[in-house]
Amino acid sequence: MVLVRQEIGDVLRDFRLQNGRTLRQVASRASVALGYLSEIERGQKEASSEILASVADALGVPISVIMREVADRMAVLESVNVPDTVPAELVVGYSSLTPTR
Amino acid sequence: MVLVRQEIGDVLRDFRLQNGRTLRQVASRASVALGYLSEIERGQKEASSEILASVADALGVPISVIMREVADRMAVLESVNVPDTVPAELVVGYSSLTPTR
Repeated sequence: MVLVRQEIGDVLRDFRLQNGRTLRQVASRASVALGYLSEIERGQKEASSEILASVADALGVPISVIMREVADRMAVLESVNVPDTVPAELVVGYSSLTPTR
Repeated sequence: MVLVRQEIGDVLRDFRLQNGRTLRQVASRASVALGYLSEIERGQKEASSEILASVADALGVPISVIMREVADRMAVLESVNVPDTVPAELVVGYSSLTPTR
């Protein structure tokens, strides 16, 4: 079973490392306990929507960008061909590699 | 503050109505209490990752598709221009309507 909290945790950690910040820095800035943030990153705890918003803010990343990355990774795990908002026939050189649903 | 659970609730309800199913049908199929599913749809309760997966399954919609829709709606709310995986310059007739970040 593909779990949202696992992907959210991975994405939050990846954005944090990409920005070169420590758990302590982000936890402090988001007013979240360090151990709790660590559990969220490891996919062991569900983050409430308020905490997610707070951590995203501390990372300087819009929550929509985090959720988009989560969705994209879950699509790979589910082998889902998520359509872009741009119709394929408008794209030059487009070829479908995965079967459409 | 843009809350993930509010968008998740809206998206779940929209997919359910699109499929012409009642709360009772989806709750039963997902083995979730009807009142609980109703609260999730109204953005009043956080759904655990397991319940989300179960409801998505009951709706016959991949969880990645649900999260993608959530991300897209949050991007509108945040006025974030989330880039597509297809570069704009490859798209015929593309014109940017929103300022790029």
